Amino acid sequence: MTYNQLVKQIGLKRSFLCAGLDGDRAQMPPHLRKDPNALFAFNRELIDATAEYVVAYKPNTAFYEVEGSSGWRQLSQTVAYIKENYPEILIIADAKRGDIGHTAQRYARAFFEELNVDAVTLSPYMGADSLTPFLGYKEKWAIVLALTSNDSASDFEMQSLANGQPLFEVVIQKSALLGTKEQLMFVAGATRPQALARFRQLIPDHFLLVPGVGAQGGNLEEVALYGMNPSCGLLVNVSRGMSAFRAKEIAQKMDLLLPNTLVC
Amino acid sequence: MTYNQLVKQIGLKRSFLCAGLDGDRAQMPPHLRKDPNALFAFNRELIDATAEYVVAYKPNTAFYEVEGSSGWRQLSQTVAYIKENYPEILIIADAKRGDIGHTAQRYARAFFEELNVDAVTLSPYMGADSLTPFLGYKEKWAIVLALTSNDSASDFEMQSLANGQPLFEVVIQKSALLGTKEQLMFVAGATRPQALARFRQLIPDHFLLVPGVGAQGGNLEEVALYGMNPSCGLLVNVSRGMSAFRAKEIAQKMDLLLPNTLVC
Repeated sequence: MTYNQLVKQIGLKRSFLCAGLDGDRAQMPPHLRKDPNALFAFNRELIDATAEYVVAYKPNTAFYEVEGSSGWRQLSQTVAYIKENYPEILIIADAKRGDIGHTAQRYARAFFEELNVDAVTLSPYMGADSLTPFLGYKEKWAIVLALTSNDSASDFEMQSLANGQPLFEVVIQKSALLGTKEQLMFVAGATRPQALARFRQLIPDHFLLVPGVGAQGGNLEEVALYGMNPSCGLLVNVSRGMSAFRAKEIAQKMDLLLPNTLVC
Repeated sequence: MTYNQLVKQIGLKRSFLCAGLDGDRAQMPPHLRKDPNALFAFNRELIDATAEYVVAYKPNTAFYEVEGSSGWRQLSQTVAYIKENYPEILIIADAKRGDIGHTAQRYARAFFEELNVDAVTLSPYMGADSLTPFLGYKEKWAIVLALTSNDSASDFEMQSLANGQPLFEVVIQKSALLGTKEQLMFVAGATRPQALARFRQLIPDHFLLVPGVGAQGGNLEEVALYGMNPSCGLLVNVSRGMSAFRAKEIAQKMDLLLPNTLVC
């Protein structure tokens, strides 16, 4: 998917909602709990119920790996189901991978060729050569962790370097040299909305994937205030408690926050 | 596996070799290349050929995920094969995972319960709450990336923080507060052997997992000189070019580098 195609979808649906696909067997309805394909069955129901309100789906690989090879198969089925029925919706594998170049190349193949998602989240800790293998794929995106939504983002991400900048800013600056807004997005937690203004100074045009609205306490209006650009430039993720009702409710709020026309 | 059990194995085998299990279908012998179970078949041959010389095996998840659910199944078969035939050998999933606590808990279950490996490598970028869920398992290890063997470790890991310390040292110090030498190891690339002396100042007792000897140019003697402690405290990984001949050759060198008795 291209940058312009994504912006157009946001304009058409008047939504920048990314729905998490993180099924938890223990919390599923009884008829699914004992189904060996519960993860896929749960996802299919949720996808059909929410597709009109979302522009992206984000399965987190942890929720599939916990069921081993069966989980990985259900992740693959989920991706294929979205591609077949809702090809206009971006699919993000929230995998947070990061390895040396030789191995990162394998991950790029695993996610962009074998699983066939549109985007994958990456951890920048090991530096540029863990990111570049993902940038050689046309219409695929690498989404780099910058400032995450969890409390212990303060442990390392927010630590000041010798030049006074926090680590996450240097991650943004060095990573942004590696690829364009067509290739790269960044993760920016909703729990520190004012930091989004700093993201916009450093990378005015790139899309930001913003987790942390909802269960983690982030505020949608503040995220839009500090992080939105003339193309929207935001994918706000909600995972826990997702449903047709919830997706519609969030999309209605997003409609009011979006400008009437989006710059493509 | 406990710390003392690992030290005892090193003493018995007179080796601190960790062999990578990173099968590449394109480079396998012709009789395996078209076998749908080639990854497992290749591993089984390599394990039987090398088990007497190694104290740990390290499959990297990227090499399995590139084959989707079949790859994940073959990873699981590989772990089960080692557990059944060589239960004294430590199994490290080189996964470099890292996510918020809620999700990290799923990864801990995926690797320590479902896949049943002894240890998993973790990326520290997101801070303490991405590591702690892995520390609640008895006789299981979290192996935290500190200073990796790749060139672009200089991008972030080696950047100086405001207090003058490089990031990887702060990662070591903060992580070491979370768990004991029975729960935590650290990744220390062989390509910067003198940095191992600094590791030993900060964490004299913890095991270090040291990749980068061999194809990446690291030197085994220098690694031992700067990184070995009275319990050995090193697992040196070699992945590319592994074979019975190569494992034996490396183990013979390791024998000469080990003290006559190891402190348990």
